[in-house]
Amino acid sequence: MAIDPALFLENERTAPSSDQRIYAEVGPLDCQVGGHLPRVTVAYETWGTLSSAKDNAILVCHALSGDSHAIGWWERLIGPGKAIDTNQFFVIGSNSLGGCQGTTGPASIADDGKPYRVRFPSITVGDMVEVQTRLLDHLGIDTLLGVAGGSMGGMQALEWTVRKPGRIKKAFVTASCAAHSAMQIGFNEAARQAVLRDPRWLGGNYEEGQEPTGGLAVGRMIGHLSFLSEQAFEVKFGRRLQDKDLPNYDLGVDFQVESYLNYQGDKFTARFDANSLLYLTKAIDYYELPSFAGSKSDYLFTSFTTDWLYPSHQSEALLKMAKAEGLKAEHQIVDLPYGHDAFLLDGEIQGKYVRAFFA
Amino acid sequence: MAIDPALFLENERTAPSSDQRIYAEVGPLDCQVGGHLPRVTVAYETWGTLSSAKDNAILVCHALSGDSHAIGWWERLIGPGKAIDTNQFFVIGSNSLGGCQGTTGPASIADDGKPYRVRFPSITVGDMVEVQTRLLDHLGIDTLLGVAGGSMGGMQALEWTVRKPGRIKKAFVTASCAAHSAMQIGFNEAARQAVLRDPRWLGGNYEEGQEPTGGLAVGRMIGHLSFLSEQAFEVKFGRRLQDKDLPNYDLGVDFQVESYLNYQGDKFTARFDANSLLYLTKAIDYYELPSFAGSKSDYLFTSFTTDWLYPSHQSEALLKMAKAEGLKAEHQIVDLPYGHDAFLLDGEIQGKYVRAFFA
Repeated sequence: MAIDPALFLENERTAPSSDQRIYAEVGPLDCQVGGHLPRVTVAYETWGTLSSAKDNAILVCHALSGDSHAIGWWERLIGPGKAIDTNQFFVIGSNSLGGCQGTTGPASIADDGKPYRVRFPSITVGDMVEVQTRLLDHLGIDTLLGVAGGSMGGMQALEWTVRKPGRIKKAFVTASCAAHSAMQIGFNEAARQAVLRDPRWLGGNYEEGQEPTGGLAVGRMIGHLSFLSEQAFEVKFGRRLQDKDLPNYDLGVDFQVESYLNYQGDKFTARFDANSLLYLTKAIDYYELPSFAGSKSDYLFTSFTTDWLYPSHQSEALLKMAKAEGLKAEHQIVDLPYGHDAFLLDGEIQGKYVRAFFA
Repeated sequence: MAIDPALFLENERTAPSSDQRIYAEVGPLDCQVGGHLPRVTVAYETWGTLSSAKDNAILVCHALSGDSHAIGWWERLIGPGKAIDTNQFFVIGSNSLGGCQGTTGPASIADDGKPYRVRFPSITVGDMVEVQTRLLDHLGIDTLLGVAGGSMGGMQALEWTVRKPGRIKKAFVTASCAAHSAMQIGFNEAARQAVLRDPRWLGGNYEEGQEPTGGLAVGRMIGHLSFLSEQAFEVKFGRRLQDKDLPNYDLGVDFQVESYLNYQGDKFTARFDANSLLYLTKAIDYYELPSFAGSKSDYLFTSFTTDWLYPSHQSEALLKMAKAEGLKAEHQIVDLPYGHDAFLLDGEIQGKYVRAFFA
């Protein structure tokens, strides 16, 4: 379980977004728990070539803060010759419903020419999958070879297999779970409250350029605290000071870890909508998959020994749920020190299992 | 490691404060890293009777949000017949320098008749101990039988033994460490930023009644996330809803864990000063005990298997540091599911070790 500090120097949620987005109009949507969207746009990207039999498509679902540019944030797993081999597969990435990277979400413009903000209806993981199925219809793809996702993306992959059984052969679900625990809900709620209690949130109806960036940055800092393991924090930062030999002994940034968290928090506010954070975290907190009844998919679950946010016992529970339905399933526990971020950072060990699974 | 849910129903940081506080004036203070306080007041309480030989005094140091009322927040350990037996010992609790429960802190009134706020000097754990030694002088107690504390209070106990060697026989240090890790600093920094980024913080110079309560509540929620273990969250809350059968599917509170965190956050703002949170967390983040050189104390360290905020390996490191100086020391790892809060909740197992240690 040795740590390779060099691994931290790249990637780590810093991959650039793409300007290659394609937009599909997929019609109106009646949301699962009520509410209606008169039109939904999906931002997506693809890599590789769809086979003439249309049987080599893999849909990649992103986590909370991701986007359609899967080849960026999952560069260790996706690309030519990689575990999800774009020379072999037709890989589709799409921004989630409720997000803020091209697909319809709370910051999108409603019929009255103004952003939805909190007029946006409450959405579920099921709604996210419904929108993805329409994208697949739009692309003329009936059956997916696979769906792959980690964390929130893993929940979408799970939901695909029970919501559209028969349309999906294999599901790779990493660092995810069937339902959030109280602790997972708690971390999300603290992040939400950071936004909700920011006076600039204004009941959700903030103006452009007047976003509740303070609360959103704190919410993101809470997220990053939960993405890393104690060991990863230690190797990345320890007690090292930020560009100084002695602390300032004031209320400002002294330690590298403080600098990192503030940097990540501030950077996030430039690319993420505060209301999207609220809607997406609520959707994954509500999510609860009781069983795999009806599923016809094979499953690969992976989890990481130091991921205390999505601990391995949650993936083990998924394995048992799949076995209970007589489905083909495996759960691989990967011993790496990177915490929850390991699902993004690890192309090697996880990649070996993924390559074999989709082969 | 079975969980007793009844344990959660009482205490858990809800013990009432005392109206029995006594105040001692302990003079001016030149702070360790610069800065000066023209006068320092200490709020303290005592229980039991000081022996004629003045050899039965135990000083109890509180954690971040505690106060002088040790018999309240540590009721499972302190009292007649309990591990720290007030029939046998003279027990002293005092509010920490920089706090907001009677001892001089950022909300105290400066010479100009206005609160210090951020004019308060940066303080260290050493300064906290210096103020406590003056309280002991004031009480005419030269040598302590013991000092006891958990978390931040444990750091003070550690510092006592190296700063005033010979004045202290035994130190009981629970759920604490010699220096915060990057992860511990990170959690504190996120809580600080919740306050610092609240527009009502106003550079630290908020008016009374206009405190940055939103940020302070979020900061406290971040704290509570780190005080509990995953298991404790599960038993206390699971996915149970708060006073409803179905979620509201809006952005408000649905789950019990959300209600708990908001309740704890809001309650905290009624009794705690936002700047105290900043100054105290900075002091413990700066703290770094290199060795026990010079100490003449015996040590009892306890830690808890599910305390991921102050993990057992930190107490094990303290044990090694003590052994390296040839000091008498033991480290007891207590297998309980309550997370960091276990040091407050557990009177039984921890109590057995404490009773034997001070016997």
